Parts: sequence; C-alpha cells; structure tokens
Amino acid sequence: MSTIKAYGNYSATSELISLEIERRDIQPTDVAIEILYCGVCHSDIHTARSEWGPARYPVVPGHEIIGKVTAVGIKVKNFKVGDSVGVGCMVDSCQHCSACEEGLEQYCENAATFTYGSPDKISGGHTFGGYSEKIVVDESFVLRIPENLNLAKAAPLLCAGITTWSPLRHWNVKSGDKVGIVGLGGLGHMGVKFAKAMGAYTIMITTSPEKGADAKLLGADEVLISKDSESMKKHANSFDFLLNTIPVGHDVDPYVSLLKRDATMVLVGAVEPLTNVNSAILVRLRKNIAGSMIGGITETQEMLDFCGENNVLPEVEMVNIQDINEAWDRVVNADVKYRFVIDMKSLK
Amino acid sequence: MSTIKAYGNYSATSELISLEIERRDIQPTDVAIEILYCGVCHSDIHTARSEWGPARYPVVPGHEIIGKVTAVGIKVKNFKVGDSVGVGCMVDSCQHCSACEEGLEQYCENAATFTYGSPDKISGGHTFGGYSEKIVVDESFVLRIPENLNLAKAAPLLCAGITTWSPLRHWNVKSGDKVGIVGLGGLGHMGVKFAKAMGAYTIMITTSPEKGADAKLLGADEVLISKDSESMKKHANSFDFLLNTIPVGHDVDPYVSLLKRDATMVLVGAVEPLTNVNSAILVRLRKNIAGSMIGGITETQEMLDFCGENNVLPEVEMVNIQDINEAWDRVVNADVKYRFVIDMKSLK
Repeated sequence: MSTIKAYGNYSATSELISLEIERRDIQPTDVAIEILYCGVCHSDIHTARSEWGPARYPVVPGHEIIGKVTAVGIKVKNFKVGDSVGVGCMVDSCQHCSACEEGLEQYCENAATFTYGSPDKISGGHTFGGYSEKIVVDESFVLRIPENLNLAKAAPLLCAGITTWSPLRHWNVKSGDKVGIVGLGGLGHMGVKFAKAMGAYTIMITTSPEKGADAKLLGADEVLISKDSESMKKHANSFDFLLNTIPVGHDVDPYVSLLKRDATMVLVGAVEPLTNVNSAILVRLRKNIAGSMIGGITETQEMLDFCGENNVLPEVEMVNIQDINEAWDRVVNADVKYRFVIDMKSLK
Repeated sequence: MSTIKAYGNYSATSELISLEIERRDIQPTDVAIEILYCGVCHSDIHTARSEWGPARYPVVPGHEIIGKVTAVGIKVKNFKVGDSVGVGCMVDSCQHCSACEEGLEQYCENAATFTYGSPDKISGGHTFGGYSEKIVVDESFVLRIPENLNLAKAAPLLCAGITTWSPLRHWNVKSGDKVGIVGLGGLGHMGVKFAKAMGAYTIMITTSPEKGADAKLLGADEVLISKDSESMKKHANSFDFLLNTIPVGHDVDPYVSLLKRDATMVLVGAVEPLTNVNSAILVRLRKNIAGSMIGGITETQEMLDFCGENNVLPEVEMVNIQDINEAWDRVVNADVKYRFVIDMKSLK
C-alpha cells in the first residue's frame, strides 16, 4: 500500500478537504496511473452527500479520470509506461456473468466495482476515485486515449460521454434520424455533439430559450422550447429517438408525445421517481421509455476512438482542486458550461 | 341504408336500451355480416359512458364480432355468402400511410375508423358496433374464422385476443422464455393462454391468491402473488417479458423490478396516468416500459389461424342482450370469468 494525497469528505454534510488515502500495491494485471485531470460529475456530489443511499466515508470522488501510466504489473499486455489513459466509472467486475460476457460490465450480475465507494476486492477497503494523485486499476478497466485528443478536455468522455454515447448506439441512431436531446447540461451537451456527429438531425429540447444559441454552437440543427406548447404540438409523433438527460424526476408526457410510433425515449439523467407517466401516450403508438446507465468498457473505447477520429470533445471549465467546493455549488446550480475538469497538478 | 335493431345508449349516464340504427348499403368491396355473437369489452363501457372523452351518441358498442356473411359487394375477392367471419376494433383506415403499409392499421397516421363511435367515411354518420343484428364492413377489415373454432367462444379473440397476442409476437416471446402476465381478467387470461401456447414458461402475477388455482387451469406454470414481497424478491431481474393487463393506473415499480436487463414490460390495460415509475429501476439494468394497442389486420388473422391450429379459445360466459346492463355492472366489478359474449339471437 502507498499513501497518497487526495480530496474527499468524511460525512454527508462536510465539505471536501485535503486528506491522505492508501492505494493498493500494483498487482500482476494492474496499471498504475498518475492522474492529470479529473472531471466533476453530479454523481460525485450525490454520492459524497449520501443522497443516493449511505456512502462509505471517506468519499474520494471522481470517475472521469485522465492520466499517464507510471508502472505496469508483470502480466499487463496492453499498456506501457507513458501511455495516455483514462478510467471511467468502473474499475472491476466479475468478468464471467452474461452481462460481462456481452461487454456490459456496468450491468454485472455480481455487481461491478465502481471507481469510488465500492468494496475493493483486493485492498479489502473501499475504492477511491480520481480526486487524487494516483490510481491503480486492472488493465481490463483502463481505456486508451487517442493521441490527438486534448487530455484535459477528454476527461468528461469517461462518464458524460459514454452515458450519452451508449444509448445512442444501442438504439441504433443513424444518419438522417430525427433525434431530440432533452436538457442541456453535462450530459445533454455531449448528447448533442454525438447525435450530430452520427449524422442525425439533432434537436435540442430545453425549457430555457437562452440555452438555444448555445445549443446551436454545440451543433444542434434546431432548438425546441418545451414550454412552447404550439411548437411541441408541431413536433408531435415525429422523433425517431429521444435522449432525456434531465437530472431529476419530471413529467415525461410532453416528451413521450414527441416520439414516433415504436420509438424510444431513454432516461440517463433522472434516477428517481418520475412525476408523471401517462400510459395512454405509450399505448396509442406503441412507444417506449427506457433507462440506460453509463456503458461497457469495449463501447467506451469505441467512443473514445470515435472522438479521436471525429475530434469530438466536451466543453470544459478548468478548476483547481482547492476550489472544488465552490465548483460543486455551481454544479448544483447548473452554472457550468458544461463540465468542470480538475487540473490535478494543483493537488501536488 | 337499412334500418336494423341494436342496443345502445343516448348519454353517458343512461343504460343500454333497444334502439334502431341505419346501416350503410353494401359498397363494391363491402361484406354484409349477420352478427351471431359479440364479446363485451371493458372499452365498450368506458366509451358509452364517455369515460375516455365525449362519445358520439347514440353509442352502439361491440368490437368482438362473429357472424356469417349474408352478402358481398361486386368487387369482394376473399369472402362469400355463408363464410364464418369476424370483425374487431377497426373497420377502416387510410391504407396508405407507413403504419397501414406495415400492416399496423391500428396506428394509422390518418386515424383508423374504429368499429363504433368513429366518423364513417361512407355513411357520413358515425360507426355502430356489434351490439346489433348486422354490420357492413370493407373486406380488408373482415377476418376469417377457422372452421374448427367454436364461434361463440371465438368472439373475444377479436379484441382481448389480438391485444395480448400482438405484443407477445412483436417483442418476440419464444419457447423457453420466462414470461409474466400481470393481472387476470379478460386480457390476462388470454395472455396466459397465448404465452403458454408459444412455449414460454408462463407465470401469472396477481394480487389475489384466490386467482392462482384458476390461472393454473388456464395453463400458467406458476403463480406469483405480487403482495408477497419475499416471492417478488426471489423473482427480481429474471423475466424476459411482462405483459401488464392491469386496467387502471398503478405503481409499476414492483413489476419493472422483475424484468431482466434489457427486457420490456408492455402495458395493454391501463390507458391513464401510472401512479409511480421510478426511473432508477429502468436505468440500472436498461429496462423498458412500452405500450401496445390491439393489433393489425394481418396479425389478427395470424392469431386466429394460430388459435385454430392450437385450439386456443377464451373462457366465456354467454349472456342475452336484454341482460347487458347487469353484465356491464359485473364487468366493472371484475366479476366475470373471463369474458361475456352476447348471443345475438336474443336480439331478434
């Protein structure tokens, strides 16, 4: 075990402070990574504040990790010292259930080990995330970052990126489809970029007219203001796919009404009860509502490679680790365009 | 036009009474049908009582119609006098939109003409259903009843049958799948019979232990009492498909929790707001909730042929038209096993 610097908190109500944690020693298939950048995800806050159930403290958040390989275990095949790599929301899974065999480790039937707050099979403690100097991860959960990508900007791809990419791919969004991205935040802005890069006619659906101009800069072909009932009516029953990134429970009926027959709206933001779902809207045109959680390791690598080839990158605001509590306040207030990335040099 | 006897009502609060209606004259592609039997569907009641929006009065309900062909138009190709035929929930559609071209007339983009209460393109009035002596229907919406089927019992196949058949087929239920049928009424009992006949391991999911024995007689391999939280927990994340026939808004979370990763629950009974849908349950294993409405004409014929080949028939209780108001009270109280069929001889 080695002692390293990190930022985390000790209770649901305490701020993040500088602290020290123990990282496990490198195992034969492990990769040791010096963390250069770490994205700030709203999940970090929900978890650290025990809003999604009681957390294991101390919580060291962070699952949008970018770094350089500093050492590799004797059996590591795919990485070498100096490689630019990423670690996302998971650092382990059973590797033998049907989900893992299909490359869907996030749905591991024996519970994936998440990057922070999960029991660590090797150390015996719990996992610590990327708000830290270093991380040691089995190479099966390490991603390769294409050389042409800006490393700081790439960080949010590891969660916000794959969370939006995976459903767009799984539901087979293709060139010419009419795709709506509901909600313009960290997830939504990646949804717009990906849908557009996949060739879809991409419509940003937002309650806020002031977000419209921004959405167009991000690549949206059109903006639909969800409070404008006339416009919503014009688009009724016309969307091939909707990616709903609204982060809280809400009335989904106005959005479901936009779907074509047999089309699907996928929820990726809200993980709580929806305030209204009228089954009549589903029944009348055989519509679907589904959920989707992050993505598997193989598809995360595919997404990163796609971003390298198409130069797709998140919009980020850099922050030092010492300013993390203020940054979190701004995330809670949806006051960031569109993702904070911590420059981990500031931790040294 | 010809004047015929029927049963119907003149306002949302009035009982059904004997009345006379006008049937259109036979058109070149029309089939005239003497109605022998008509099933009683809960939709009849909702519509006649304006519970699904204001009805066009008089309402003559009935869309589970079985009869004999008495005359055919000069261009009719597929039917002749004396044939045993059925008419379901629709009697016309645009025939050229993408839904109609895919054989999904129920989702016609220009609005299907439903068997009762829809504007009738030919007569200029509105359509009247099967609680009557006779019906005149374009042959494209007339179904052939396999000769070996009991005609009285076959009636509910035209709505309860196709409503459950269509989603089981569309979502590709196959031999060996673990399928749950939620709710044991007119729809649910057909769901059990079809799922079993398709080779699925069929589990009846009901709130009422007393329905268990019945469900097994209908063919269920197992009964799961939804109020028994221990049993529900044992079946968590294990169903390949759920057909939810509960006819009112309800908390769907306990049922969605039963689905496997990537599996779907289809709502066919409730056409109103659900009381609870927790998106977290959808997100965690990429689960789906969908709706489905009746079925297309081609698949209705396939279903009837399947019933002929496999001798699948609803359980029915025969009733005379003069007792229809009492029968409706019993439908509302879920006091029928499992579908009333009106013997239309009683109307003469």
